[in-house]
This record gives sequence, structure tokens and C-alpha cells, in this order.
Amino acid sequence: MHAYRSHTCAELNKSNVGDTVRLSGWVHRVRDHGGLLFIDLRDHYGITQVMADPDSPVFAEIEKVRSEWCIRIDGNVLARDASLVNDKLPTGEIEVFIRDIEILGKAEELPLMVFGEQEYPEETRLRYRYLDLRREKMQQNMLLRSNMVQSIRKRMWDKGFNEYQTPIITASSPEGARDFLVPSRLHPGKFYALPQAPQQFKQLMMVSGFDKYFQIAPCFRDEDPRADRSPTDFYQLDLEMSFVTQQDVFDTIQPVMQGVFEEFGGGRKVDTDWPQISYRDAALWYGSDKPDLRNPIKMQVVSEHFAGSGFAIFAKLLEQDGTEVRAIPAPTGGSRKFCDRMNAFAQKEGLPGMGYIFWRKQSPDSIAQERGITVKEVNALVKSGEITLGNEAAGPLAKNIGPERTEAIRQQLGLDVGDAAFFLGGKPKAFEGVAGRARNVIGEELGLTDKDRFAFAWVVDFPIYEADEETGKIDFEHNPFSMPQGGMEALDGNPLEVLGYQYDLACNGYELVSGAIRNHRPEIMFKAFEIAGYGKDEVEKRFGGMVNAFQYGAPPHGGCAAGIDRMVMLLADEANIREVIMFPMNQRAEDLMMSAPSEPMSDQLMELGLRVIPQDQ
Amino acid sequence: MHAYRSHTCAELNKSNVGDTVRLSGWVHRVRDHGGLLFIDLRDHYGITQVMADPDSPVFAEIEKVRSEWCIRIDGNVLARDASLVNDKLPTGEIEVFIRDIEILGKAEELPLMVFGEQEYPEETRLRYRYLDLRREKMQQNMLLRSNMVQSIRKRMWDKGFNEYQTPIITASSPEGARDFLVPSRLHPGKFYALPQAPQQFKQLMMVSGFDKYFQIAPCFRDEDPRADRSPTDFYQLDLEMSFVTQQDVFDTIQPVMQGVFEEFGGGRKVDTDWPQISYRDAALWYGSDKPDLRNPIKMQVVSEHFAGSGFAIFAKLLEQDGTEVRAIPAPTGGSRKFCDRMNAFAQKEGLPGMGYIFWRKQSPDSIAQERGITVKEVNALVKSGEITLGNEAAGPLAKNIGPERTEAIRQQLGLDVGDAAFFLGGKPKAFEGVAGRARNVIGEELGLTDKDRFAFAWVVDFPIYEADEETGKIDFEHNPFSMPQGGMEALDGNPLEVLGYQYDLACNGYELVSGAIRNHRPEIMFKAFEIAGYGKDEVEKRFGGMVNAFQYGAPPHGGCAAGIDRMVMLLADEANIREVIMFPMNQRAEDLMMSAPSEPMSDQLMELGLRVIPQDQ
Repeated sequence: MHAYRSHTCAELNKSNVGDTVRLSGWVHRVRDHGGLLFIDLRDHYGITQVMADPDSPVFAEIEKVRSEWCIRIDGNVLARDASLVNDKLPTGEIEVFIRDIEILGKAEELPLMVFGEQEYPEETRLRYRYLDLRREKMQQNMLLRSNMVQSIRKRMWDKGFNEYQTPIITASSPEGARDFLVPSRLHPGKFYALPQAPQQFKQLMMVSGFDKYFQIAPCFRDEDPRADRSPTDFYQLDLEMSFVTQQDVFDTIQPVMQGVFEEFGGGRKVDTDWPQISYRDAALWYGSDKPDLRNPIKMQVVSEHFAGSGFAIFAKLLEQDGTEVRAIPAPTGGSRKFCDRMNAFAQKEGLPGMGYIFWRKQSPDSIAQERGITVKEVNALVKSGEITLGNEAAGPLAKNIGPERTEAIRQQLGLDVGDAAFFLGGKPKAFEGVAGRARNVIGEELGLTDKDRFAFAWVVDFPIYEADEETGKIDFEHNPFSMPQGGMEALDGNPLEVLGYQYDLACNGYELVSGAIRNHRPEIMFKAFEIAGYGKDEVEKRFGGMVNAFQYGAPPHGGCAAGIDRMVMLLADEANIREVIMFPMNQRAEDLMMSAPSEPMSDQLMELGLRVIPQDQ
Repeated sequence: MHAYRSHTCAELNKSNVGDTVRLSGWVHRVRDHGGLLFIDLRDHYGITQVMADPDSPVFAEIEKVRSEWCIRIDGNVLARDASLVNDKLPTGEIEVFIRDIEILGKAEELPLMVFGEQEYPEETRLRYRYLDLRREKMQQNMLLRSNMVQSIRKRMWDKGFNEYQTPIITASSPEGARDFLVPSRLHPGKFYALPQAPQQFKQLMMVSGFDKYFQIAPCFRDEDPRADRSPTDFYQLDLEMSFVTQQDVFDTIQPVMQGVFEEFGGGRKVDTDWPQISYRDAALWYGSDKPDLRNPIKMQVVSEHFAGSGFAIFAKLLEQDGTEVRAIPAPTGGSRKFCDRMNAFAQKEGLPGMGYIFWRKQSPDSIAQERGITVKEVNALVKSGEITLGNEAAGPLAKNIGPERTEAIRQQLGLDVGDAAFFLGGKPKAFEGVAGRARNVIGEELGLTDKDRFAFAWVVDFPIYEADEETGKIDFEHNPFSMPQGGMEALDGNPLEVLGYQYDLACNGYELVSGAIRNHRPEIMFKAFEIAGYGKDEVEKRFGGMVNAFQYGAPPHGGCAAGIDRMVMLLADEANIREVIMFPMNQRAEDLMMSAPSEPMSDQLMELGLRVIPQDQ
């Protein structure tokens, strides 16, 4: 028999009754039923109940074992009584009577229980990660991650992509975040950098003639702490293709992502229709460049109904250039209570409030007033069916702008009795963010957002440039390597109107993918940089490797990168990135288990030609 | 039609004749046949001949294109004349008459030609890596690497292994080489390290209950320059399993490696029998712990034949404790010329020389002397068949030790006429290395080493400790985490006799895999470290993460790591590691294309709390 196991802890069933078996695993739980000892023995694959009574030759040994000891047992497979069969366990029909036991690894008193649902502070979980990882949910998350990455690889291979590794110890990459530096020993005073992404290398591979590249690539950014990201590194599905248009990239990545979400989504609906929404429309409709399309609410411009209206705040506002009033329709939100709650939300976000109108059933009162008859008469007419109660707008805004404008708004937004609409005005840039968040809250609170669904949208036509609010200085809005739509000619016009072949994929309100068709023409690239204020020298200094390469027959190319950690978070329904990484840093970028970072030895610093500046200075 | 291509450059054949097609690629070669222009258009997939004559509407444009320009052409597929069909090209039956052309990317004058076999200095190749990579051999090497890694992954998945990523920014790992350090910005004065291997993490995963782990893992070592290794990083197939014995690890990895070598070996023979040779025997038989079994030569101890013999050097030597004389048999090496060449080799290696005996056909002369008859009479007897010429030992050694000892040696080594044997004596440690190299040279020069073959051998039973030659101090021979054979009891005896469950796989003279069954018992681990002079405190300080974990129910576990770069080198038959890495550093650990390492910006250093020590001081 094998030294440690004849079966895993998930394998035995009724067909094994009578067999002599050997199992190894951890003591998940011990129960003492008056002299009978039951142990749930757990390994990576499952749990098998093993048991002993005082007749067992090793009963005294078995009595000593405690939770999370690692043991090996030999025993006989017994059928359980029908009444004791556990349907939830694949091994629930049997139990193993222990004949022999070997203690493979004892456990000290546990700082964290594996069995049960007890919660522990994150610091404890990270310090004793090897115990935390034994818990079922963590095992599942890690397996999900591993299986998802495997599935991605297979799907990419099937599409004719090859995986190539790019350097990890390299030069600074131009992703705009902070680099991790690595001092060179052979060249004291000089430093390498860890790549923020394989951006330049994948473009260089295209110049080298490798048609379709992908990589599950580690990316390194020295980030300030934030709950939903790792402060040091993350993984992305990085891909690049030659001789492609934007649509080719979409057609390549959509089936991969969709397939993965279908495979691992646990039955949640995965949208097959992925609309392409311009950056501009996304901001207008959803107040976000990563819209959550599970939420059906779409904002609209309603300026015309407020211009010159009796609602002075908006009317005045609209006299200024570049201002707008936008409505957030809120179907089923038509109660004062809900509207007041949303108004409070807006105040929490730092606004003076959020105007609203809601529509309720017309009251007999108002008809009586309108027609100059009594309420009693109205009720009689309603009863006889001669009149029906229509809708009636409520809220201070409605009063101010009057019934005609109110009704026009209602019709534009397609709302009815029981619905509401919220209004925000000003320069769009200033309120779009709040509007987007209000849309999210409204969708959530009214139950409009379908939780069991993955909804995707391509956001396209990003502007290449943006102007600094204060100085007016033009800079790149995003990645400087995207091809401007319209090429060189477009760059001769107003830079702020130049759009790029640049795109993001949003899923449930998160940015899941980002990419572009690249600017592969050196002359267009230099011009694009010039507009943003970078001279030829500086471009050559900062991106020399790539710019040089483009002068030797660069092919048109493009690609994208998808966030692996984010995908697992969505699939596992986890909000904290540390739940989907095997050995994560804490938020202060420390590894508590391995004690990193730590003080170097002085001869290490000497070899590197470095001195630490005392922090008190 | 697609913006760039209707087909790749490897797709068109006779069935496409008459089609209008669009191709994109690089101008591999232009030939001007008196007004007719032929272009070999190349992409990642292949080459298609495209052509134009002065009737082509874009002839003037086509005349401008030069080597390595990236172009798009539209044209009609024409059948080639039977006499012009190129059998070597999948597209050799057709050519495309160009109707339209678009220049996608021009090329400056080339520092390196892609077409042809011209050799360039490595610095040129690395600086213009994107051109170098366009060459056919480089494309093949990179594809081989990518396909090999893909195959490894599939094979590991099939065996129930899951791939998990381990941290890259972490604490120092105890592999004994130099770490790359990464300064922390959030904790100035403290440093992370890049992992020399995922050793501790994979063991922690086993403690976490992940039964079967693998990873194609980047490993980082700050190495001094050497031709056959990267000065910064390399990749390994890293794997670990719980509840296994050494043989389980062998049974797991052998089919993976064998399958990969069969799949990518290009028809070379792949041994299926992988002998297990003890470290001790490997040293004796092959003078190496990574023996090349393609070479049939096996060394033997021949001390008894020299002890007390007339060959004073060896006879005297053997009077000292711990000395031996070993023979390297050299079948078919029986000529003075060859023996003298090998003697010269030994002198180049710093030895005074290498004694030898070779066997030739007995000369009529010597029989005449022996029998006291004339040579003429001997010849007559040979002719009549009454006597046959036997073998005769030649060389000064044979004379010194006399015919009986010489014959005994010949019989022990199984040699005959036409063969030779070489002899080295002393303390084995002192000459084993030279003996091993001599064995290699002999095998090569005599054509005994089968070049078209991959021969594998497990080297097992490594000693856990070694004693320093001068101080006698006991230290770990290898990895300190291996389980000593015999466990705690063995550690109570003579440390130098303790063997470990530790193993290497040799292939064609290279170490391809290294691994061990780990020491998962804290008490045995502390004892093992104590013997090597490390106190409990130091062990906890250096390997705290892992040692702590072992106190919470550690399972028995073991694994190994296989060198990916080395495997590709063997399969691609390349001696230089830079031929199998996409973007390698040069030997001075510089990336000439990306200009790394480079001087940091002063605010970067400031943020890290570091100062560079001027190198003149």
C-alpha cells in the first residue's frame, strides 16, 4: 500500500465497503459520542468520516489528536446506517473504522480555526495565511482563480495566440504610475524597474513579427493603499495582435471573456450583446466610463424644459456656457420618502441637494378644483367610469416649472404613476460623477439592478487629450500610444476633439479590459507627443526602445489587457482583492507571514552602492 | 475585405488561383528580373511570392519598397508555371500579381539583415532585437519555447496539478545565491527581495492543503556573468505534492519530461529507462553528479592492480588513506596518437599527465622473442593458422606494472585490441572533476557519445552535509530543507554519512531537474540546522514563515523544479541561453534595447530614502 494514502478523502463510497484503505489529511473536527470518536478527515479533495471505539487497537492514540493535526489512518470502510447517510457529502454513505494511525504533523494551539464560520481580523488571517487558506471558501477561491486562468489560456491557444514571457527586470515602462526600482549590483548607482505592464515589449513583439501574443502577465505598481487593489502587483491577460482593427480585437476577446464568465459564473446570466458606447455617451447616460448595464437607468439631457422656467436655480445656471440639466429617471421610485432619501444622498456627496419630481395617481381633490365640482361628485364620476384618474406630478420642482414642462419631462423620460426623476445641473464634468453614483444607488435601492447577471459594454472613442482645468495645458487623457482616429490630419485640428482608437470593457460597473489600436507610425507619434508638450528628445529618451523599433517596418497593431484579479473578484463575488490572491500583501504593502519588507544587511547595501538616509533627518 | 489581410502569407495554394486576395507582411527579399519585380512577402506564418510588371497600376510604388518595409498588397492569385513551382514553400505553387499596395511601415537602413545567413555581433543583435527576432531561426526558437511551455502546462493539468502564482515582490528566499532587492517606498530603509525560487511559498501551499501545485515560475538571482545562464532571471517548472514519497515525484515528472522531449525532440531518441544512480556512484562512474549517459563510458576503481606495483607514482599514492586509482576505459581509443592527445588534455587541466595503456594486435616480433624463433617463422605459423596474434598492451604504464596486472586490468574493464584505458589517482574529490571531463572528451572524440539522443538519469542519495576542506566545518551540501533519510535517528550519527531524500535529474550532462522530499517536521529541521551551526533563533529569523507554518499540522511533501530555459536549449540545440529568450539581458546584465539599468531620478531616490554612494570613494 502507498506510504500515505490509497484514496483521497473525497473518493470512498458504497462500492468500497469492506475495503481496507489508507487516508491522509487534516483533522477537521472531532466529535466524542460517549466513547465513540468521530473525526472528519479533510484533504484538498473532500472530507471522509473516520471513527474509532475503545476496541480500536489505537484508540489511545486517536484520543490525542486535535483539530488541524495532519494524520494518516488505515481502516476498514463501513456502510453507514441509512439514517446516518449524509447526502451533502460524496463520501456520506460510508465511514472508515480506524485500525492504525500515524501522526504526520501535530498542531500548536490554533490562532485561527479552519472549521466553522468564525471571522478573524485580516492581520491574523494574513499572518497565518496557511491556516486561513485551509478554509473551504479560500480553497474554492484559489481553485477558481487557477481554473479560470487555465481556461483563459486554452481559449487563447485555440484562437492561435502564443504565450511569450516578457522581462520582469527591465526599464521603466510608461504607464504613468510609480515604478518599483531594483538597484543593480553590477552597475552601482543604476537601477532597473519592474514593469508596470508589458506594454512596450508586446508592441516590440509585434514589430518582431509575432502575430498574436498573449501572456498572463504580472504587473508591478508602487501604489498607495486602497482596499480593492494590491499595493504591489496584479496580473493581467495581456494580448496584442498585428494587422488588426479595433473590431478585430473586440471579436477576439469577447468570446474569451464571455466563455470564461459562462464557465465560472455559477449560472448567473452572461450578456451576449455587448454594446459599443462612446465615452461621451457613457458619461451622459451613465455618469461613468465604466457603466453598470445591469442597471437599466439611462440619464437624459432635459435642459430645454428648465431653460427660462420658473425654477430659478436651473434657469439661471443654463444661461452660462457649457451647462446642462440632466435627469436620472427612477422607475418605481415615486414616493416622497424615497425621493427624500436620494436628496440626502446627494447632500452627503457634497451637493446642496438633488431636485426631483415624482408622479402619483391624480387625487379627486385636484380634479374637483380643476373642474369646479365637489370631491364627492368626482368620486361618483370615477365610480361610474366617466373619468379616470391620471397622473399627477409632485415635489417642489414641479410646482416651480408648472404642469406643461413637467408633463413634457415625464413624456421624454417615459415615466408614469409611481415613478420619479432626479435632476442635476451645471457643467457636466462637475456633476457627472455624482450623477453616476446616484444612478447606482437608485438602481440598487429600487431593485432595478439585476444582481445575477454579468453585463458588458465596450466604451469607445476616448479623447486622446484633455486640458488641465486650471492651466489649460493639453496632456494625454490616457495611454499616449493609441492611434488617433483620422491619423496625422486629425492632429492638425483641435486636439481636444481628437478621439483615439482606444477602448475599455466595462462589466457590472468595473473596468475589466483596456486597450487600443496603437500608434505605429513614428511621425504621427512624435506629432502626438509634441501636442502634449513632449519634444522629440524626450520621447526618444523615455520610450527609445519602442520608438526606434517603429522606424524599421512596424506593422499596424493593437490589443488589450484584462484584469485577472478583477475577473476572479467578480466571479467569486468578493469585494476585497486579498480574498482572491494566494499570498497577498496587507494594505500597508507588508507580508506579515514572511516579514517583508525588512532591513537589508549592510554588505548587501554596500554591494549595491547605496546608503539609507536616516528618516529623522 | 478586411483592412489588412484576407489570408496569411502561408495560406494560398492552387485552389486560390483566380481569387482576389489581400496580404500584409514584410518585404523579405526583392528581385528585379528585367522589369519584373518579385517580392517574397513574409509574415509570422510564411512567405508568399508577390510580383508586378510595368503594367501593374502601382508599379512605381512597388519599385520604391525595400527590405523589411511592412506593406499591404491586393492582387490576383496566379498559378506558377510547372517549372517555377517551389516545393519547399507551402505557397510555392502560386504567386500574387499586385494590383494595389499600401506602405504600412517604412524601414530605415537596416543594421541587421533578416534575409540570409549573415552573422552579427551579439551586441548588435540585442540592440536591434526586434529585427533579430524576425529571423527564421529565432522565430522557431521562440515558438518552440512557447509550445513547450504550453505542452508542459497541459501535461501537468492532466495529472491533476493546479497552477498557482506565488509572490514576486517578497522576502529573501534561502536558495543561497544573491537576491535582487527592491526598496520599499512606504517603509523607507526597508527592502523586499525578488524570489530566487518559490521554494518557501510552495511548501506553505502544501501546509495550506493544496495537494498538487505547479507553476511556470520566474526566478531571480543576481548572478555574475556566465555564457549559459541569464544574469538576472530564469524560468522553472516548479512543482510540489503532498503525501508523497520520492518515487511518487519521479513517477509524476518522468512522463511529463519524456513526453515533452518526444514531442519537441525532432525525432531524436528519448530514453524511456531512467536509471537511479546514487550520488556516490555517479561520481565514481561518471565523475559528475550530472552524468551524460549518451556516453557509454563508465569508470572503475582499479586500485588493486596498482597497489604495490612497479608504477611507483600510483603505488606510493595508494599508501595514503582515502586514495584510489580509477580507470576511464576508452573503447576504440587504442592508438598512441589518441592517448597522447588525451594526455595533453590532462595537462591542460593542470594535471602532470594521465597514465594510459592501449591494446594493439600482438606483433610477430614479440612472439618471435617470446618463443625464441624468427619473425619469418612466426609469420609462416600465422599464415598457416597455427597461431593467432592476440593482444598486446602498449604504453609506459604497462611496462611498469608488468603483463599480469595489465591483463587483469584489461579483463576488468572488458577491453580488447584497439581499445585504451586512462588512469587517474589520488583522493577522489581531487580528480573526479577532471576524470569526468576526460570521459566527456573521450566519448566525443571517439564518437561514442550518441548525439541524436536524450539520455536521462536520476541522481539520488545526496549527502545532506559536507565538511569544509580546510576548516572541517559542517555545512549543508545543498538545500537545507530536505528530509534526511532515517529522520531524527540518522541525525544522531555521523553527519557526513547522512543522506537526504534529495535528487537531481541529469539529461545529456546537464542538470535538468532538482528536488527533494522536504523536512516537514520542525524538530528534525531545528536539529538539522543545529548540526550545520545555525541556532533556533537564526532559523526562525531566516525562514520564520515556513518554520512557523510547520507547527500547525504540516503534511509530508516534496517536489522538484525543472529548468525551462535549459530544456529549450537542449531541444533547440543551442548553447547560448540568449537564443531561447525573447528579450534577454547581455552578459553584463544590461538591456541594450531598453537602456536598463539606468540612473534613477533624484525624486525617486528621495521617496525611497536612498542615497547613491559615489563610486570614486
